[in-house]
Amino acid sequence: MNKKLNQDLEFLIEIDKMKNVYRAIKICSQDRLENDAEHSFHVALMAMTLSSYAQEDIDLLKVLKMLLIHDLVEIDAGDTFAYDQKGYETKFEREQKAADRIYGLLNEDKEKEFRNLYDEFENMETQEAQFANFIDRFQPILLNYLNGGGTWKEHHIKKEQVEARIAPFQKTSPALYDFTCSIIDEYFDRGVR
Amino acid sequence: MNKKLNQDLEFLIEIDKMKNVYRAIKICSQDRLENDAEHSFHVALMAMTLSSYAQEDIDLLKVLKMLLIHDLVEIDAGDTFAYDQKGYETKFEREQKAADRIYGLLNEDKEKEFRNLYDEFENMETQEAQFANFIDRFQPILLNYLNGGGTWKEHHIKKEQVEARIAPFQKTSPALYDFTCSIIDEYFDRGVR
Repeated sequence: MNKKLNQDLEFLIEIDKMKNVYRAIKICSQDRLENDAEHSFHVALMAMTLSSYAQEDIDLLKVLKMLLIHDLVEIDAGDTFAYDQKGYETKFEREQKAADRIYGLLNEDKEKEFRNLYDEFENMETQEAQFANFIDRFQPILLNYLNGGGTWKEHHIKKEQVEARIAPFQKTSPALYDFTCSIIDEYFDRGVR
Repeated sequence: MNKKLNQDLEFLIEIDKMKNVYRAIKICSQDRLENDAEHSFHVALMAMTLSSYAQEDIDLLKVLKMLLIHDLVEIDAGDTFAYDQKGYETKFEREQKAADRIYGLLNEDKEKEFRNLYDEFENMETQEAQFANFIDRFQPILLNYLNGGGTWKEHHIKKEQVEARIAPFQKTSPALYDFTCSIIDEYFDRGVR
């Protein structure tokens, strides 16, 4: 049996657990929380659909790869709610440890490729990482907006906190940035809540 | 407001319903059925991880795009179990109608691009479509194997029926084909059930 293939399959079996990591966001089509597999699918399809609105030319394959793997660390580290200050204190350490274990299941070549993609996403320096991070933050904003406030309401989140999440991405995609601001305004200022 | 962006966002909101289309396959990490969003995520990540085992050079970006959109038609048409002969009689017609409506939500350029990708996947003629289809069929075989027979057991599926699902792909990826045959043999011949 092919040893490399066996390692890759071990990794792909482990990934099934993404379907059981629940986020602090509800989906729209049922009254329940979203899991990481569903989120990863939704953001990948969003990136594929919205890449033409990126300000700079981006390598879409790299963006899709980053979005497919960016949350795998949550299999061990769990989802940290975007506005959970206490959770953020330990997030980096928990996720680095998870990355070591989970990407470590792969054969050496792929471990290196996947870990580099994960680090690039986290460092948010390249055009691709910025676009991927914008989409990753836009998706839960859209879901909370569509759910009449959703988990913002539940956790008493303020407009400034939501705005701060997307502030780094004004130049990444002006059209998508303007749209995101418009739904944040609509919810927090015009009393859709 | 940007009309094209609005159309694309309507499409991406509709896609949330994928999280509520359940398949005739159970996940491994909980005792429940898998939904189409989870399946689409899992097969996209599988293709990204296993593309090096394809016999021919393939355009991975195209494969990922196909896998991210291949099941969107099931929002309207529902999941048709791979071994449901009666369901297959009406599958093509139901799915074409669904494709017209769902891809029709997009602006014209993207509608054409996405519909072409969907048709290419369904026609199974290009190397990319063959690899994507193999992964799409391999994933539920792996899940049923890991679940001690899962929905094969429940629906009294025979070994020949499972083998027929992957028969077209022996040359697409010999290593993955051999592995798939080995788990089918193990389950049906060695009484893992």
